[in-house]
Amino acid sequence: MPHRTAFFISDGTGITAETFGNAILAQFEAKHRRVRLPFVDDADKAHQAVRQINHVAQVEGKRPLVFLTVVNMEVLEVIKTHCNGMIMDMFGTFVEPLEAELGIKSNHRVGRFSDASKSQAYHDRIEAINYSLAHDDGQSHADLEGSDVILVGVSRSGKTPTSLYLAMQYGVKASNYPLIPEDFERRQLPPALVPHRKKLFGLTIDPMRLSEIRNERRPNSRYASLENCRHEVNEAESMMRRAGVRWLSTTTKSIEEIATTILQEVRPERLEY
Amino acid sequence: MPHRTAFFISDGTGITAETFGNAILAQFEAKHRRVRLPFVDDADKAHQAVRQINHVAQVEGKRPLVFLTVVNMEVLEVIKTHCNGMIMDMFGTFVEPLEAELGIKSNHRVGRFSDASKSQAYHDRIEAINYSLAHDDGQSHADLEGSDVILVGVSRSGKTPTSLYLAMQYGVKASNYPLIPEDFERRQLPPALVPHRKKLFGLTIDPMRLSEIRNERRPNSRYASLENCRHEVNEAESMMRRAGVRWLSTTTKSIEEIATTILQEVRPERLEY
Repeated sequence: MPHRTAFFISDGTGITAETFGNAILAQFEAKHRRVRLPFVDDADKAHQAVRQINHVAQVEGKRPLVFLTVVNMEVLEVIKTHCNGMIMDMFGTFVEPLEAELGIKSNHRVGRFSDASKSQAYHDRIEAINYSLAHDDGQSHADLEGSDVILVGVSRSGKTPTSLYLAMQYGVKASNYPLIPEDFERRQLPPALVPHRKKLFGLTIDPMRLSEIRNERRPNSRYASLENCRHEVNEAESMMRRAGVRWLSTTTKSIEEIATTILQEVRPERLEY
Repeated sequence: MPHRTAFFISDGTGITAETFGNAILAQFEAKHRRVRLPFVDDADKAHQAVRQINHVAQVEGKRPLVFLTVVNMEVLEVIKTHCNGMIMDMFGTFVEPLEAELGIKSNHRVGRFSDASKSQAYHDRIEAINYSLAHDDGQSHADLEGSDVILVGVSRSGKTPTSLYLAMQYGVKASNYPLIPEDFERRQLPPALVPHRKKLFGLTIDPMRLSEIRNERRPNSRYASLENCRHEVNEAESMMRRAGVRWLSTTTKSIEEIATTILQEVRPERLEY
């Protein structure tokens, strides 16, 4: 296996450089060491980064992989001139053809996130985070109609991380509400949810996996037992089916995949902006 | 201003395609409409995407910008052959040179997030989210020593979104603890924090901005008044200075920038993995 060190270098947070680099590296089986160097925004820091890269090149005897999202021309110049790595320059590659296509010059603006904090979209994200926190785990029935989506499912099916991800990344006001044994006995949706049926989205999970997750919290409890998990999941799925609630299984899905699927289902217009 | 529609197309969640496209588009002043098309993972869906793109091309009379992170060769073929957009293909551009450099073939694996859910890093992220939630706003003193970082600051200085972002993106167990008038009267750090002084990181904020934010919550309250905000911020900064707590101002920073800065300061090793 060819082992290399990959550097993600940016004059901003480096989040884009890291996303870019990790997506490319995921196309190869090899395990690489990864180093994110954020805020490389002057010649001094650029020279420091170059020293670090060239040191690794020497020690490992192989060119490090250098993923760049740098807009500062001075920084770019230092890195491109002096670094003994294989440079993959995202902006350099795509911005120039796009300048030709659009007939305008790029502005070399540093960091997508650097003036985000003044935008309406950013404000909405922060509001959504606060909303989702206040409406986590059925904590508050107040203003449930303000939700963009209400996630339902048994305890530990993934509702909380998904709600927070939807809020943080997409400004979606996602509340979540547990389905508990009491609901299964009544064989009905929790009364607070009935007026909001159209906003419900269910999360379910394989009972074996659920039992594993619950056992980490409360080992050897009835709550975590496979038998109980089977029962709860079965009841929850039946209830969602009867109530006509859309649902998906989180068993093998990441929160990114779950959130994207939910967005497509309940707020497809949020995929356009 | 040249207005175009930009498509972000992927056979996975499209999060990488969107990050890629938005980073490139941020280099231009023009306002573009953006459309994310996730899970385009067979020829049928590819043809559907092509129809959508070509329709826009016709209506707008300009080539749409098409940012691709597609690994499925069939999907790629359909899009490249039939679409009347300007194609920017991230994988196509960088994977081939990297295959030559590494001397191995790429695996055309769909979606960085698609088997994330089985990894230790993913497990740690979910654990960190639960931890940060349980330790939001000084809710729990239990296990504070389990924190990677403890954010401190006055109410509404940005502690909660930052903690959750650190947890969600980096698996950092970030708790947060408010500094309140009572602490300022005693002129000492909250007693629960004293044993963990080394883990503290302060957030401060311009009093004018703080007053704006608080007024959205509790209009015309003493809590939101500029005078009170000035007093609290002043006291909090003095306290952090006396206690030797590192801090930054969140006034014009996004959570992405705040989180990256904190990571560099308190967990630089998390930038390498």
